[in-house]
Amino acid sequence: MIDFVFQNPTKILFGKNALSSLHDEAARWGERVLLVYGGGSIKRTGVYDQVMAQLAGLQVWELGGVQPNPRLSLVREGIALCREQGIQLVLAVGGGSAIDTAKGIANGVCYDGDVWDLFDGKGKNTEVLPLGTVVTIPAAGSEMSDSCVITREEDLCKRGRNTPLNFPKFSILNPEFTYTLPPFQTACGVVDIMAHMMERYFTRVTHVELIDRMTEGALKTVVNNAPIVMQDPENYDARAEIMWAGCLSHNTLLQTGRVGDWASHKLEHELSALYDIAHGAGLAIVFPAWMKYALAHGGEAKLAQFGRRVFDVPDSGDDAADAAEGIRRLEAFYRSLGLTTTLTENGIGDTDFGRMAERAAAMAGGVLGQFVPLKAADCEAIYRLAL
Amino acid sequence: MIDFVFQNPTKILFGKNALSSLHDEAARWGERVLLVYGGGSIKRTGVYDQVMAQLAGLQVWELGGVQPNPRLSLVREGIALCREQGIQLVLAVGGGSAIDTAKGIANGVCYDGDVWDLFDGKGKNTEVLPLGTVVTIPAAGSEMSDSCVITREEDLCKRGRNTPLNFPKFSILNPEFTYTLPPFQTACGVVDIMAHMMERYFTRVTHVELIDRMTEGALKTVVNNAPIVMQDPENYDARAEIMWAGCLSHNTLLQTGRVGDWASHKLEHELSALYDIAHGAGLAIVFPAWMKYALAHGGEAKLAQFGRRVFDVPDSGDDAADAAEGIRRLEAFYRSLGLTTTLTENGIGDTDFGRMAERAAAMAGGVLGQFVPLKAADCEAIYRLAL
Repeated sequence: MIDFVFQNPTKILFGKNALSSLHDEAARWGERVLLVYGGGSIKRTGVYDQVMAQLAGLQVWELGGVQPNPRLSLVREGIALCREQGIQLVLAVGGGSAIDTAKGIANGVCYDGDVWDLFDGKGKNTEVLPLGTVVTIPAAGSEMSDSCVITREEDLCKRGRNTPLNFPKFSILNPEFTYTLPPFQTACGVVDIMAHMMERYFTRVTHVELIDRMTEGALKTVVNNAPIVMQDPENYDARAEIMWAGCLSHNTLLQTGRVGDWASHKLEHELSALYDIAHGAGLAIVFPAWMKYALAHGGEAKLAQFGRRVFDVPDSGDDAADAAEGIRRLEAFYRSLGLTTTLTENGIGDTDFGRMAERAAAMAGGVLGQFVPLKAADCEAIYRLAL
Repeated sequence: MIDFVFQNPTKILFGKNALSSLHDEAARWGERVLLVYGGGSIKRTGVYDQVMAQLAGLQVWELGGVQPNPRLSLVREGIALCREQGIQLVLAVGGGSAIDTAKGIANGVCYDGDVWDLFDGKGKNTEVLPLGTVVTIPAAGSEMSDSCVITREEDLCKRGRNTPLNFPKFSILNPEFTYTLPPFQTACGVVDIMAHMMERYFTRVTHVELIDRMTEGALKTVVNNAPIVMQDPENYDARAEIMWAGCLSHNTLLQTGRVGDWASHKLEHELSALYDIAHGAGLAIVFPAWMKYALAHGGEAKLAQFGRRVFDVPDSGDDAADAAEGIRRLEAFYRSLGLTTTLTENGIGDTDFGRMAERAAAMAGGVLGQFVPLKAADCEAIYRLAL
C-alpha cells in the first residue's frame, strides 16, 4: 500500500425522497441559481418539473442543451451568464455531461482568464462557485468525484481536470429518476461504472487487499444487478444498487493506497474522438482487449484474481487460464447487456489504429498506463485485439 | 435499501510519511494547539517527540492522562484550558479514548452550559473547535467518525453522542505507530473493528447488496491480516490493511441504506461497566453469543451469508447449519488471537445478568437492537449463552 490522502466532502442525499431536500440544500448557498441540463429528457420524464417545484422561491436561470462529450462553448456561455446575473449556485440536473459542464462553469467564473487555461494547465483557480447535482444517469460518477472532462469543439481536444474544487457541495440521487433510461444507456452506464473500478483495481501496487476486496464486492454487485434492470427497468432496489455503486466507483475511495491504470479510458477516448461511439460502448470493446494484452504481458495473477472473485471462475491453479476465463465471462456479460465487444461489429477497421495509438501514447508522455506500461506499438496491438 | 444521507468531510493522511503533513494541517486552523493524549506510551514510542517536532513554531498546551473509557472530568479540564488559553485546534494523539476526550472538549468549548448536557440531550451546540487526530490504536474508528463516547465517573454513566460536528478536520494514520501495541490491545482492536462492521451488517433491511459485499470484503481483509500482525507486529502492509479498515469500519459509509443493530455493543457496555474487561475483549464474548441467539430467532439467512462469504463456509444448502459453522469459525478466530469467548473463562458468573439485562433494555427504551428486537429477558438469555 502506498501513502495517500483521502478527502471527499460531497453530501449525498440518496433515495425516493431525496429530492425533497433540494430546496434547503440549494438555498443554503444563495438565492440565484443556474440550472444546467441537457436535452428534453428531464422535461419528458417530469424531473424538470419536480426540480423547479423544489426551487420555488429562488431565482432560477436556465442553461439547457448540454451534449454528450460536453462542449467548451457551452461552458463559456454559462460563465458569462453567471457573471451577468450574479449566480450563487450552479445546479446540474442530468448525468456526467451536465455535471461536468456545471463544474467547468463553477471553476471558470472564479478564474480571470479563459476557462480553457484551467484544462490545459496554463491557469489556476483557488475558488469555485458552489455546485449541486441531481443525478439522472448513473455512469460517470461525477456527482461525487473531483474530475471534470470538457471537449474543445474546434479541434475535438478533450481534456480532464482533477481538483478537490470539483467536489459538488451536494448530490441528490433518486434511483427512480433512472427508470426511463433507454436500455443502451443503462448498459453503457454499467460498463463505465465497472471501468472506473477496474482502472483502479488493476495496479502494480501490492498489499492492497482491503480496497481490492471492497472493489470486487462492488463489481459483483453491479454484475448481479445489471441483468435485473435490463429486464425490469423499474426495479427500485437493483437501480439503487447500481446508482450507489456508480457514485462510489469514482469518489476516490477505491483509489486509496494504489496507483490506477487508466489506459483503457485513454484508448477509448481516441476511439470515440474519431468514431461515433458512446463512451461506455467503447469501453466494452477496449477494456477486454486491454485485459488480453495485459494477460500476455505479466498481468495474469491479478487478472486471475479478478476472474475468480468477480466472476466466480473456479480456481484451476493456472493463473493464465483463469484470467482468460474471467475475460471471457466479462465479455459475455457485456454482450448479455446488448453491447458489442469488437470493433468489427461496429464497422471499424484498422485504418486509424496507428494514428490513434500514437496520440494515446503521446498524450500520456510516451508511456500509457502502469499495470502494463504501453508505448504506441502496444496501444496499436490492443486496438488489433479489439477488432 | 432505505433512503440515506451520507457526508464525511474528514481529511485522511495515511502512510509512512503522513505525519510530515501535521504542521501544515495544524497551522491552517491557528497557532494555539491543545495536545490531548493518554499515558506515557506515546512518549516511550517516540510518537510524542515526532508530533512535537512537527508542531514547532506553534504554541502547544498539553492535556495528558486520558484513560480508557474517557472521563468527563478530563473533558471539563480541557474545556477550561481551551477557554483560558484561547486554543484554536484540539489535537488528539492516541486511540479512541484520546480522540473522544478531544471531541468532548471541542464541543464543550462552544457550548455555554455544562458539557454533559450535550451527552444527555439537554443541550445543543452548533459549532466546535477544529479537531485533528494522530492515530496510534486502530480500533474505535473515532478518527473518521461522527461519534464520541464519554463516561461520567460519579455514577459510571457512559453516554455517546453522534453529530456531524464530531468529524475531525484531519486525521493522520501511520501504520508504523501501531507496531508497539501489545498483542492483547491489537487483538481487542481487531474485534472492535469487526464489530463496527457487523453491527451494521446484521440488518433487517433487504436489498443492501453493495454495502453487504463491501463489508464482507473488509471483514475478510481484517480476518486475513490479523494473524499476520499477531505473528509479525512490524509487518507494515498487514498493519496498514487493519488500520485503514478500522477507519472505514466506522466512518458511516458501511451504514448507508440500512438500519444498524448495535445490541452487542450495548450488551458489552453493561458488561464492562460492572467488570474489569476491555471493550474489544468483551465484544469477543458477547457478539458470538448474540449471534447464537439471533440464529435461533429468525436470523439464519443473513448469518449463513456471513459464514459463507466471510469465513468461506461451504454452502450446504442449510442456512442454520452454515450460520452455526460461521459462528464457530468466528469464535475460533477470536481465540486464535489469544482472546477468550466465554464469561466463565473471565471468572464472571450469572449473578448480575438480571440487572445488566434490565439496564441494557431500559437504555434502549425497552427494546434493544433491530435484527432481533431484544427485551430484557432476551438480553439475559444472551448473557447466559456467553457463559
